[in-house]
Amino acid sequence: MNVSTAVSRAAAATPHLAAQTGDQRRTMLYACADALAAAGAEIVATALAETGLTEARLRGELDRTTGQFRLLGDHAAKPWRRVSAGVAAGGGDVVTVPVPVGPVAVFAASNFPLAFGVSGGDTASALAAGCPVVVKAHPAQPRTAELLGRILAQALPDGAFSLVAGGPEVSLELVRAPGIRAVGFTGSLTGGRALMDAAAARPDPIPVYAEMGSLNPVLVLPGAAVPATVSALAAAVTGSAGQLCTKPGLVVTDAAAFADELAAAVAALPVHRMLTDGMTRAHERWQAHASAAYRVVAGAGTPAPFAVVVSVGELTGELLEEHFGPSVVIAVGAAEDVPSRLEGSLTASVFAAEGDRERARVLLPGLLARAGRIVWNGVPTGVAVCDAMQHGGPWPATSAAWSTSVGTEAIERFRRPVALQGVPADLLYGHSELAQCPTAG
Amino acid sequence: MNVSTAVSRAAAATPHLAAQTGDQRRTMLYACADALAAAGAEIVATALAETGLTEARLRGELDRTTGQFRLLGDHAAKPWRRVSAGVAAGGGDVVTVPVPVGPVAVFAASNFPLAFGVSGGDTASALAAGCPVVVKAHPAQPRTAELLGRILAQALPDGAFSLVAGGPEVSLELVRAPGIRAVGFTGSLTGGRALMDAAAARPDPIPVYAEMGSLNPVLVLPGAAVPATVSALAAAVTGSAGQLCTKPGLVVTDAAAFADELAAAVAALPVHRMLTDGMTRAHERWQAHASAAYRVVAGAGTPAPFAVVVSVGELTGELLEEHFGPSVVIAVGAAEDVPSRLEGSLTASVFAAEGDRERARVLLPGLLARAGRIVWNGVPTGVAVCDAMQHGGPWPATSAAWSTSVGTEAIERFRRPVALQGVPADLLYGHSELAQCPTAG
Repeated sequence: MNVSTAVSRAAAATPHLAAQTGDQRRTMLYACADALAAAGAEIVATALAETGLTEARLRGELDRTTGQFRLLGDHAAKPWRRVSAGVAAGGGDVVTVPVPVGPVAVFAASNFPLAFGVSGGDTASALAAGCPVVVKAHPAQPRTAELLGRILAQALPDGAFSLVAGGPEVSLELVRAPGIRAVGFTGSLTGGRALMDAAAARPDPIPVYAEMGSLNPVLVLPGAAVPATVSALAAAVTGSAGQLCTKPGLVVTDAAAFADELAAAVAALPVHRMLTDGMTRAHERWQAHASAAYRVVAGAGTPAPFAVVVSVGELTGELLEEHFGPSVVIAVGAAEDVPSRLEGSLTASVFAAEGDRERARVLLPGLLARAGRIVWNGVPTGVAVCDAMQHGGPWPATSAAWSTSVGTEAIERFRRPVALQGVPADLLYGHSELAQCPTAG
Repeated sequence: MNVSTAVSRAAAATPHLAAQTGDQRRTMLYACADALAAAGAEIVATALAETGLTEARLRGELDRTTGQFRLLGDHAAKPWRRVSAGVAAGGGDVVTVPVPVGPVAVFAASNFPLAFGVSGGDTASALAAGCPVVVKAHPAQPRTAELLGRILAQALPDGAFSLVAGGPEVSLELVRAPGIRAVGFTGSLTGGRALMDAAAARPDPIPVYAEMGSLNPVLVLPGAAVPATVSALAAAVTGSAGQLCTKPGLVVTDAAAFADELAAAVAALPVHRMLTDGMTRAHERWQAHASAAYRVVAGAGTPAPFAVVVSVGELTGELLEEHFGPSVVIAVGAAEDVPSRLEGSLTASVFAAEGDRERARVLLPGLLARAGRIVWNGVPTGVAVCDAMQHGGPWPATSAAWSTSVGTEAIERFRRPVALQGVPADLLYGHSELAQCPTAG
């Protein structure tokens, strides 16, 4: 479908979706989950062929995807209102309820072909907010995208879902389309920035919720520099071939021996093929460059997992940027010297034992100022889909640090508050965006 | 003070403010309120000389300003956390708490020299979030700005407040300063857009919360086309010389007689001088242009209040834009033909009697899609400062329709959620941004 047809269909569906009750919206999202689950075998087989990811991972991701639709559907059905009693002119109430922003453009990511792809959290949260979506397929996964798109289009009301495909010019056309009111994106900093610039240059700028590059620093304090930490971090660096937005990209340790053990463990783990040839080449370029410039401990295979081992004093520039793929920078030195040099990340993690607590206490404020999630004695990979999840962070991790692309709060990117002053509740019932709020007014 | 000194001071104060407990933050905001109240006579006298606003209005505005500091201080002391139990790896909890975004640039508005000026809601909500502020004074009110700035700087910790002054080049320098993390602005569409463009072009784009032009349409249905509606609307159009962001700029009525009565009532009301000569000239230019192009009913004085009376069919272009000052467009025809032509507004209002309810039911969805607040049988001027207030709306009313610049939710523009996964609560107590959340972890 071309962009203008898709956006016109979305615009036509907007009033219909906005007028749904919360229960109707929940039913709609459950229908998506059911349809995806029913086609599970075909979805997994198709994604398996296109991605290089393992079958176990894709089966798990499908469960996550259907669970996400159901969780967001349940959330859409919950009342959302703020009331300030007796404050309006004449002593009336002010009641605030959510209203969908209108058609949302979603850019599917390749690294979670189901859970952040066509059927991902951006699509589910936009629909849960009451917004039609136009999804641009990721070019690396055309058949998976087409299959997911067909399933969702059949499960949803007319115009609520459309799929478009193409290159960067189609992406920009979609972001510039007058009918589009918000954008969800997961991908590279370059790609996200291009969409942000196009959205900001519109006659009527629209918000872009872009999740982009994240270093995900990990500070390992001395008491936690133990074999279990080595295993957990090595697995997090190499799992899914290092193609997770929460992959630890930097590990800081006082202990040179721990650094060596972690580097060896990373190099020893088997890694499956990457999502695209372009990603593989970028990983290999980084390996070649790093091997010439720093000490590198590398394993075998294509892609080869590897660790760059440096001192904390060397940490600048490329060593503090995300490198997608199964690699990590391990910096030996004082953790205290690191936070002030970091840009924003989705996550920051601290491994610490009892004896490290006072050091951790001093380190935490600097991490809180630079990350959206703090993990204590755990790896940042494996993001729980729940009410309290914050999967966002300061630039360049995301374009809007207040927002999250995972969890029920993801809905709030695509609906906005409207205050009602004295509006009779019966006029809103079942005829408007407010039907989901049965006690409004 | 120059911009770079002010921003450096703000950056230096950032960790100190972030580490405050909620109670400490409340105490800080109450100290601002107390200091402003103590200097009330001098503040009112200074603003009286510089603005043309009445003494009664300025006294009321001072109360609103100090009340706003106290309300936001109380809000800052309240716990703010989301908890998802047992969902993190290993069955741990995810707890989300707010963290201040860092130094905020505030652009003082001229039309509320106290409540949206140097001591306004943007300043108070940024401080309540735990962010230092750098305020740019409005050029039309240098003495009021200087006085308010001196009072706040004395009441606040070192670096938490700085005042800068100058023209557009200083505004852009402030928005481009690397240390600034967010911007609050109230003013014209042209001014707001210039700041948005500068912020979007930074190497690290930052959010601009700009409240700009708003038409604030009012639909008067037949049963409510009565003298009380005429009086209420005429007063809302001409009060404060029409220099309110919620001034009704468009009134739609089926009844030609009501239109004539309202036009006559607007023209008959006395109006005090406008805030600046530039605003007066713009109002006079609009009057001259409208008088040549449409039917205009005008009163006497400088500025002269006036109404432009047209048919609904004529409503395009300049008739659907905000015109600051004591003027209004009155359109005669069917209300049903209007909503689809409107851009975003802060407010939309409906005057209706019992017999008009079915028409209102049909009209409301179109208004909800285009405004941030719906007022029923009331005028949009007079915005209550409360938890449920939404003073924001779709473009061009604001740059971020999810946000509000009035009420306690204004704080959320300047703090972001951080999820904690397993972080021990005792490590956060009184040593970090989380101190305000005593049960975190």
